[in-house]
Amino acid sequence: MRVGVVGIGHAKFGNRTDVNVNELAWEAQKLAYEDSGLTQDDMGFCAVSTLGTWYEESLPAVTITEYGGMVPVGHVRCESACAAGSAAIHIAYTRVASGLCDIAMALGVEKMTEVDTPTTVELIGRSGSYMWEFENFGLTFPGYYALLASGHMARFGTGEEDLAAVAVKNHHYGSLNKNAYLKREITVEKVLSSPPIAWPLKFLDCCPINDGAAAVILASEEKARKITDTPIWIEGLGTAGDTANICNREDLYSIRSSTLAAKQAYEMAGIGPRDLDLVEVHDCFTIAEILAYEDAGLCPKGEGPRLIREGQTYHDGDIPVNIDGGLKAKGHPIGATGCSMIYEITRQLRGEAEKGRSVKVDKGYGMAHNVGGTGHSCYVTILGRD
Amino acid sequence: MRVGVVGIGHAKFGNRTDVNVNELAWEAQKLAYEDSGLTQDDMGFCAVSTLGTWYEESLPAVTITEYGGMVPVGHVRCESACAAGSAAIHIAYTRVASGLCDIAMALGVEKMTEVDTPTTVELIGRSGSYMWEFENFGLTFPGYYALLASGHMARFGTGEEDLAAVAVKNHHYGSLNKNAYLKREITVEKVLSSPPIAWPLKFLDCCPINDGAAAVILASEEKARKITDTPIWIEGLGTAGDTANICNREDLYSIRSSTLAAKQAYEMAGIGPRDLDLVEVHDCFTIAEILAYEDAGLCPKGEGPRLIREGQTYHDGDIPVNIDGGLKAKGHPIGATGCSMIYEITRQLRGEAEKGRSVKVDKGYGMAHNVGGTGHSCYVTILGRD
Repeated sequence: MRVGVVGIGHAKFGNRTDVNVNELAWEAQKLAYEDSGLTQDDMGFCAVSTLGTWYEESLPAVTITEYGGMVPVGHVRCESACAAGSAAIHIAYTRVASGLCDIAMALGVEKMTEVDTPTTVELIGRSGSYMWEFENFGLTFPGYYALLASGHMARFGTGEEDLAAVAVKNHHYGSLNKNAYLKREITVEKVLSSPPIAWPLKFLDCCPINDGAAAVILASEEKARKITDTPIWIEGLGTAGDTANICNREDLYSIRSSTLAAKQAYEMAGIGPRDLDLVEVHDCFTIAEILAYEDAGLCPKGEGPRLIREGQTYHDGDIPVNIDGGLKAKGHPIGATGCSMIYEITRQLRGEAEKGRSVKVDKGYGMAHNVGGTGHSCYVTILGRD
Repeated sequence: MRVGVVGIGHAKFGNRTDVNVNELAWEAQKLAYEDSGLTQDDMGFCAVSTLGTWYEESLPAVTITEYGGMVPVGHVRCESACAAGSAAIHIAYTRVASGLCDIAMALGVEKMTEVDTPTTVELIGRSGSYMWEFENFGLTFPGYYALLASGHMARFGTGEEDLAAVAVKNHHYGSLNKNAYLKREITVEKVLSSPPIAWPLKFLDCCPINDGAAAVILASEEKARKITDTPIWIEGLGTAGDTANICNREDLYSIRSSTLAAKQAYEMAGIGPRDLDLVEVHDCFTIAEILAYEDAGLCPKGEGPRLIREGQTYHDGDIPVNIDGGLKAKGHPIGATGCSMIYEITRQLRGEAEKGRSVKVDKGYGMAHNVGGTGHSCYVTILGRD
C-alpha cells in the first residue's frame, strides 16, 4: 500500500527553556494538524521518538500524547540512537502500510538543555560499546568521529579545509531557515581556527545538541488524496545495523549501515542517486556529511571532498545536501532530527522552501539519511511527489 | 497479509546474576532459532523491547543484536512501559505485514536485579505522571494499583480473598512452568497474612521484578508455511493509550485502554471472548488480573471476582487465564513480558505445554493482553492456529 506525508510541523530548535518537553512536542504537533487540516481524532497511532534520559518523565510518550490531546490513541516510544526520528517514521509507515490504521503520526522530540553539558556528553559518549570503549578508553562521541575523519584523511587525502567547507555551507543555509538554531555565516578560516575538540575535528566541525520537535502525519493513499492536493509519497525505506564496538568495523572511513540502508531504499523506490533533487544527511560532524555523500552513493568512495570543494551540494549544485542547515546549524535534538529531515524534504518537494534555499525540483525525489551512533544503525527514507 | 509465529524462545526468568543483558537476550534468541530452524541471516528486522535504565549499555538494542550475531540487520528499541514486549510484537508484525521484510524478530529482555531495590521501585514508581503524582504525592506503582483495587472493592464488593485467589492460581501454574521464577504453591491464608504493601495489596498480591528474555520470530504466510507445519497466526491486534495522570481517568475500577485495545483486536480477528481457548493477562498485581477479565470482556463488569471464585480461569475451567503462572509467578522483567505471553500462547495452541497445565484447544484462539503502566497503554494480540 502506498503511504503519503499529509501533514508536517516543526518547532523552533534551540535552547528552549521556555517550554517543557510536552509543550515542545505540542508545538510541532499543532503545526502538523494545521498543515493537514486533521485533528487528534483522526490519528490511528503515534510513534514517539525520544531518548528521554534528559528530563524527568520516565514515560514521555504517554505525557506527550496526553498533553497533545491524543488520548486514547495507541502509541509507542522508539529509539535507534540519533536515528530515532526516522525509526518513528518507519514505524508509523508500517502501521499504515500494513492496514492497521489509515493515519499515523511520527512525533520526534528531545529536550537536552535541562541537564548540564558534562552529563549530556557522558550520556552521548556512552553511545558506543560502553563496557569496552567508554569505560576503558574514555571514548566519547567526537572521538569516535575523529577516528573516522582521520581514517578518511589517511585513505583519501581529505583535508581539514574540506571538513570546514561542509560547516560553511550548512551555516549558510541555517541562516536562511527560520527553525534553525545557528543563524550566523562562518568561514573556512573560522572553522579551522576554532578550538580543537578531537583532532581533526574542531568546535565548528561539531553540531550542537539542543531542544526541538518535529511531527509528520502519514496516511494511506486513499486518505492522502482526500486530505491534500500535494501528498508526498514514501517511496523507499531502508535500515541496517552494525557493531556497537567500533573496533569491530570493517574499516574506519565509511559507514556500512549507511550503504546498506541506502541500497535497500533505492531498490524499493526503483531509483538511483541521480534521480534525487535533494538529500538530507546526518551531519552530526562535518566528516559525517562527507561519509554520507559516499556511502549513500552520491559520488564514488573517496570523492566526497570533491563534491563539497566544487560546491555541488549547494542548493543550485548537482545534488543539494542539507539545504536546511543540517544538524550542524539546526542543532541535533536527537529524537527530533529524523522527523525534521522529512519535514524539510516534504517542504522542498512541495515547493514551499524559503527563497534563496529552495532547490529545483524536476526529478521529484528527495532522500533522508539518518545515522544512529557511529553507524550502529542507519535509516534511509526516499520521498517522491506525484 | 497474514503473518505467523514461526519460532519462539524463552530464557529462565529469575535473578540472573550469571549473565549480562546481551547473554540473557541470546538465550531466548538461540532457542527461537532452534525452534524455527532459521538463523540470524534469515532475519529482516529486529524489534528489541527493553526499558534499559537498569544496566550500563545506553544503546542496548545495538549490543544485544551484535552479541546475537545479527549484524547488519536493522533494529529499533521500543518502549511502552510494561507493554514494551507487545509493542515489539506489533512493530515486527507491521514490518512483515507491510511487505518491508519476510521475517522479523521481536526480542524482549530486561535485567533489573543489578540495581538496588529502592532505585528500581523509584524508577517504576515514576511510571505515572512524575511531576504531579510522584513528586507531590509520592505515589509508586503498588499505590496506583491499590487505588484501583480499593475502587473495585467499593464499587463491586470485591474481597481481599478474591485478590488472593488470583495469586494462589498463578503460583500453582508457576510451579509447573520450567521458566517461572516462583515455583512454590501458596494459599489464600498465606496471601492474606503476608506483609501489607499498599492496602488492600499485600506482598503476595504483587508480582516480582526480575531478569528475563523471550523471543518471537514472525514470518509472512508464504514463508511461514515453508518454515513450519504449525504456524500460529496473528489474527488480531489492538492498542490504545490513556492519561499518565491517574486522576484524569474516567473511573478507578477499570482500565479503559484495555477495553479499547481488546475491542480492536476482536474486531480485526472477527471473533469474540467466547472463541478463546486461553488468555494471558497482565497480572502485575492480583487486582490487575481481575480488571483484565472484565475489561477484555471475559465476563461482564464487576463479575471478575466470580470468575476466580468459581475456578473458571484454571486450565480446565471455562476460560483459562495465565496458565504459565502470569507475571505473578514468572516475574516481570519488563521488556520481556509481552514476548513471554506470545511464547506461552503459541506453545498452548501448538499443544506443547507441560502436563497438568495444558489447556484444551478446540476453538483455536488465544489472546495476550499486556498493560503499560496503570493503563497508560495497552496492547492486545490474538493468535490462532490453522
